[in-house]
Amino acid sequence: MILYGYSMSSASYRVRIALCLKGIEPTLVTKQLRRGEHRHKDFLRLNPQGFVPALELDDGRVLTQSLAIIEYLDEIHPEPPLLPATPLERARVRSMAQLIACDIHPLNNLRVLQYLEGPLAQTPSTRDAWYRHWIEAGFAALEQTLGNDAARGRYCHGESPTLADVCLVPQVFNARRFSVDLCAYPRIVAIDAACHELAAFARAAPEKQT
Amino acid sequence: MILYGYSMSSASYRVRIALCLKGIEPTLVTKQLRRGEHRHKDFLRLNPQGFVPALELDDGRVLTQSLAIIEYLDEIHPEPPLLPATPLERARVRSMAQLIACDIHPLNNLRVLQYLEGPLAQTPSTRDAWYRHWIEAGFAALEQTLGNDAARGRYCHGESPTLADVCLVPQVFNARRFSVDLCAYPRIVAIDAACHELAAFARAAPEKQT
Repeated sequence: MILYGYSMSSASYRVRIALCLKGIEPTLVTKQLRRGEHRHKDFLRLNPQGFVPALELDDGRVLTQSLAIIEYLDEIHPEPPLLPATPLERARVRSMAQLIACDIHPLNNLRVLQYLEGPLAQTPSTRDAWYRHWIEAGFAALEQTLGNDAARGRYCHGESPTLADVCLVPQVFNARRFSVDLCAYPRIVAIDAACHELAAFARAAPEKQT
Repeated sequence: MILYGYSMSSASYRVRIALCLKGIEPTLVTKQLRRGEHRHKDFLRLNPQGFVPALELDDGRVLTQSLAIIEYLDEIHPEPPLLPATPLERARVRSMAQLIACDIHPLNNLRVLQYLEGPLAQTPSTRDAWYRHWIEAGFAALEQTLGNDAARGRYCHGESPTLADVCLVPQVFNARRFSVDLCAYPRIVAIDAACHELAAFARAAPEKQT
């Protein structure tokens, strides 16, 4: 199994966390996004989107899209589970993961920032305001969801980490990198801290990648 | 069951298709996004994000995020299935759905277009070029995935519609609305046409909503 990724890619970071939680150790191949390595034709043959992460299985099949990869890993290696047992709880966890993976992260990834600075000729400060804007909108809603719900626990959903935490921690990392003020999101900050106490989250962190 | 939605919201459209495929008929409540009805505090109590779709169950619980809602519906009403039987096939279908739901649609939704026109002071023509840019990038990769794969069939994956088709049809609707030239994506166009032959897809279309 080969994981094509990049230390600072938050979608890659999600998959690294899931792999560490599952105790799976693939070969890691880095694609330096800022050098455009993901646009090389050999990689585009594996993933026509040219995105990381991409997970190449031993038979050569390639899985793309971080959430699809993580649900696959959860299905073939069910322990520890990254989704709860009931359909309703699974919907809650998936919706928190998707709040991040659909409504925050895609607006802030490298190709979008490059479009803002290139074709739209925006300044770095306008670009950074854009970046923070979508995190703040998403985190405000997520904080309320986390705080209000009956399932409130140590992590996003209950007492063990799920797909939602796997998405949250890389997004908090990005928020800090762009100096988002996290004071308004105490539940998010507490859950992020709880996750960082787990070896799997610590090992998957960008600064631990070579 | 109450579905809060909006005829032109493509995430609502996805959930309408899934409900029609499953033969479930919830009460439909329209939130006029352009009038800001989704920002009223009564609705924000149901969904802190203030987004449609939101699905209120008979016990008052509310599910958000279209893909999470659809997977929930697929779990509680398994027939006809919207995901294939094996983990590898499910990963393929989910990745195609997420290519649309993460990498195209969030960049083009109303709040983002409003940010481009408001804080970033972009013209309608620059806004429309942005809109088309992300569809074209996503469709180019999706077309290749659809065309190359062994699982090639009448729909995105095989001979019955899945979560991937449920996401594709509303995205093609949006592409046509913004005059994207679809000539380069014959597989996408053919799959969209095959879907429109099914009553469930036809009934869920924006123009069929009151």
